[in-house]
Amino acid sequence: MRISRLRRIVEDTDTRAGRLFDWTVQFLILVSLVSFALETLPDLSPKLRRDLYAVEVGTIACFTAEYILRLVVAERPLRYALSFFGLVDLLAILPFYLALGLDLRFVRLVRMLRVVRLLKMARYNRALRRLNRALVLAREELVLYMVITAMLLFVSAVGIYYCEHDAQPQAFASVPHALWWAVCTLTTVGYGDVYPVTPLGKFFTFVVLMVGLAAVAAPAGIFAEALSRARMLDEDEPDSTGSGE
Amino acid sequence: MRISRLRRIVEDTDTRAGRLFDWTVQFLILVSLVSFALETLPDLSPKLRRDLYAVEVGTIACFTAEYILRLVVAERPLRYALSFFGLVDLLAILPFYLALGLDLRFVRLVRMLRVVRLLKMARYNRALRRLNRALVLAREELVLYMVITAMLLFVSAVGIYYCEHDAQPQAFASVPHALWWAVCTLTTVGYGDVYPVTPLGKFFTFVVLMVGLAAVAAPAGIFAEALSRARMLDEDEPDSTGSGE
Amino acid sequence: MRISRLRRIVEDTDTRAGRLFDWTVQFLILVSLVSFALETLPDLSPKLRRDLYAVEVGTIACFTAEYILRLVVAERPLRYALSFFGLVDLLAILPFYLALGLDLRFVRLVRMLRVVRLLKMARYNRALRRLNRALVLAREELVLYMVITAMLLFVSAVGIYYCEHDAQPQAFASVPHALWWAVCTLTTVGYGDVYPVTPLGKFFTFVVLMVGLAAVAAPAGIFAEALSRARMLDEDEPDSTGSGE
Amino acid sequence: MRISRLRRIVEDTDTRAGRLFDWTVQFLILVSLVSFALETLPDLSPKLRRDLYAVEVGTIACFTAEYILRLVVAERPLRYALSFFGLVDLLAILPFYLALGLDLRFVRLVRMLRVVRLLKMARYNRALRRLNRALVLAREELVLYMVITAMLLFVSAVGIYYCEHDAQPQAFASVPHALWWAVCTLTTVGYGDVYPVTPLGKFFTFVVLMVGLAAVAAPAGIFAEALSRARMLDEDEPDSTGSGE
Repeated sequence: MRISRLRRIVEDTDTRAGRLFDWTVQFLILVSLVSFALETLPDLSPKLRRDLYAVEVGTIACFTAEYILRLVVAERPLRYALSFFGLVDLLAILPFYLALGLDLRFVRLVRMLRVVRLLKMARYNRALRRLNRALVLAREELVLYMVITAMLLFVSAVGIYYCEHDAQPQAFASVPHALWWAVCTLTTVGYGDVYPVTPLGKFFTFVVLMVGLAAVAAPAGIFAEALSRARMLDEDEPDSTGSGE
Repeated sequence: MRISRLRRIVEDTDTRAGRLFDWTVQFLILVSLVSFALETLPDLSPKLRRDLYAVEVGTIACFTAEYILRLVVAERPLRYALSFFGLVDLLAILPFYLALGLDLRFVRLVRMLRVVRLLKMARYNRALRRLNRALVLAREELVLYMVITAMLLFVSAVGIYYCEHDAQPQAFASVPHALWWAVCTLTTVGYGDVYPVTPLGKFFTFVVLMVGLAAVAAPAGIFAEALSRARMLDEDEPDSTGSGE
Repeated sequence: MRISRLRRIVEDTDTRAGRLFDWTVQFLILVSLVSFALETLPDLSPKLRRDLYAVEVGTIACFTAEYILRLVVAERPLRYALSFFGLVDLLAILPFYLALGLDLRFVRLVRMLRVVRLLKMARYNRALRRLNRALVLAREELVLYMVITAMLLFVSAVGIYYCEHDAQPQAFASVPHALWWAVCTLTTVGYGDVYPVTPLGKFFTFVVLMVGLAAVAAPAGIFAEALSRARMLDEDEPDSTGSGE
Repeated sequence: MRISRLRRIVEDTDTRAGRLFDWTVQFLILVSLVSFALETLPDLSPKLRRDLYAVEVGTIACFTAEYILRLVVAERPLRYALSFFGLVDLLAILPFYLALGLDLRFVRLVRMLRVVRLLKMARYNRALRRLNRALVLAREELVLYMVITAMLLFVSAVGIYYCEHDAQPQAFASVPHALWWAVCTLTTVGYGDVYPVTPLGKFFTFVVLMVGLAAVAAPAGIFAEALSRARMLDEDEPDSTGSGE
């Protein structure tokens, strides 16, 4: 009897306590990510560093409690432990415990894994569930987008390599080097660290951009349409904030 | 009897005098904003500075007269004073009177509040009312857009921090520093003040851009669709330029 | 009898001779624009300069003949002379004759007017006529787009001016100076000549970009929809390449 | 009997062996392109260079075998040899054999032709076939897009030339030079190697961007719609991975 009431709080959001539980965990994820970002700041005072560590220990304690709670209330604990969200919940706390036992060199790599906590958000966030559904609907467009982009980038890189290699042997040293230029240019980021200087290279850039902007913009528009369909599907069914199982 | 005729001029646009009143106030807002921008120019001649101050005093006098007029003609003056546009009308003139009584240090902060006058435009402008309606229709897409963008920015910043921190300890000093790079890159602005130099960082940038451009472009497209729906709703109903109440 | 046959060739495209006439004029416009661009190149050999001048004289002669022909065949010559395309045809040849009689200082300004010839294209080009129709259909969206953009640019400029003026008194000397930054940033061009350096300015840039990209992208999408409607209208009616009258 | 079974494997994908054949060739294309890119890297060890050459010889042998096989199994070998994919298959192997017999100076040019192998992908890739269909559907929009873009670039270049030529005689030396600025700016790449410095040039840039972003974005949106229609056509018909003939 007790367990089933707890389960309803932990896994569903149709009770006031359930919604409170959800919002609390989401808030803790945010706190732990912000403290993770702040820890990387250089020239932190020792006091602030201690405080941030305390926040880290606190949130880890909460997430550990949440993990154990979910294991306890789950109808089939093993199935939860091996589910996607079960593994995410574990990966969100594991790095901390591993870092305690490891020597310092591996700690930094393990700390990076803390970003995994971001994925915990997906369980609670309605918007993220819709994005996931749109990704499934637009699967084929995304493949098309990736194939076109990869081909465009490769052809652009080979072309600019032959146009600019002699004029700028450093910046366009090889096709892989030229790929960096292709990425910066076709996405229109244009940092300005590499750009063509020969008339031929500039003309080639013009042609590549005309073709590239049209081709890359298209699947993005279709993905927008898929997201629109996902919203309609979302509105048809009742709001069932599914549990992790 | 007099009041009701004045009210029709001030609050509605179905009379010739009412439209004239609207256009006059819109014109004064534009004049006051342009003079605000010009005042910040360095090396202004004292004469021009005096002229701009005269324009400022003149427009403030007009806006004050408009505010008092609206209070007088309103059926429920208190309700108008506390409405959104009532507060905007007050905030558009208050900074000027506050600056007269304050010492110089606070004046500059208060002057910045003059931009609030821009919001007065929204009362008169049909296009802005439609934008507002589209924002309400696309509320959920905007939340989705913000959640995705925030997550992408955070993951990008953490990733590039680990890729580039050792190679460029100044530009990528911490995760918050790396966030600036993430903003510049995912929006494709690419000022060129920070960019990756290591092969790993460049590859990471490529991956982030492929994912980011598709995900961020989608809600923008859906917002376009909402704006299109807002136009259709706009065309169905008669043109009622609502008053500030 | 003669005149009516000539008119059909000059004004319509339903005969073989009429299409030939159209294509010839379009080709001459292209030739004259390319030669205009090449003339501005520094370090041209005197021979090439002479050749380009000969091309200029030749195309002007052809356009003059075309103008006179159109005046002659038009049912109401005065109405043609005062129509949009009539004035464009005149402006395309007038600068040349004016430059012959003017002293050198004004010549350069007058030469710039030669770009007007580009507008002659619109008479012959089916794609440009469709663009024109889409512009009429999306009139209201374009007003919305301009109002939003103008407001966003102004608010961004005022905001960044207060954030960055103290740190970079040169680059952000005044609100008009800051407007240049706003244009470069909100359009995502990002030349890199001005960018924020203070944490507050960087955060403000982030907020402005999030709002700006969504708002500015929307009317562009709606304009696409209008262009799509213009195509459907285009397909319903028979292909009537209207004459300039 | 033998031939017809082989033909089914080589030309169709409805058998297990046929799909395996397709995937193998696609994999070999990828391998050969990656090795092509790596070969351009400077400072390769002689051993790695030998290995890459071995990969090149190996893939060429496979593609030659594939070409001969297709000739043998084709019902009408000559028609295959002169078809689009027949020529692509030939061009993918020819440069290698030509380079064996040529002196060194021509080799580099011929090697560049190896990118043609990328086109072989189009035979096997469902996504690329759909892109091709969308290109046919959106033919008119693409013409419109190109005409508008060309006109915008030309007008922008002429305008900025007159605004900035006196202030920056190097960067804006002529209209063709200014075209490079127009390409960088209207595509929003903005490398930062050329940008206006005069107030007039900055204002002109603002006007050009407002017009340009709206006009260029539109056909891209319509192309997205065509891609969406192409997908629907794709779903209606059975999956017939057409052979090269």
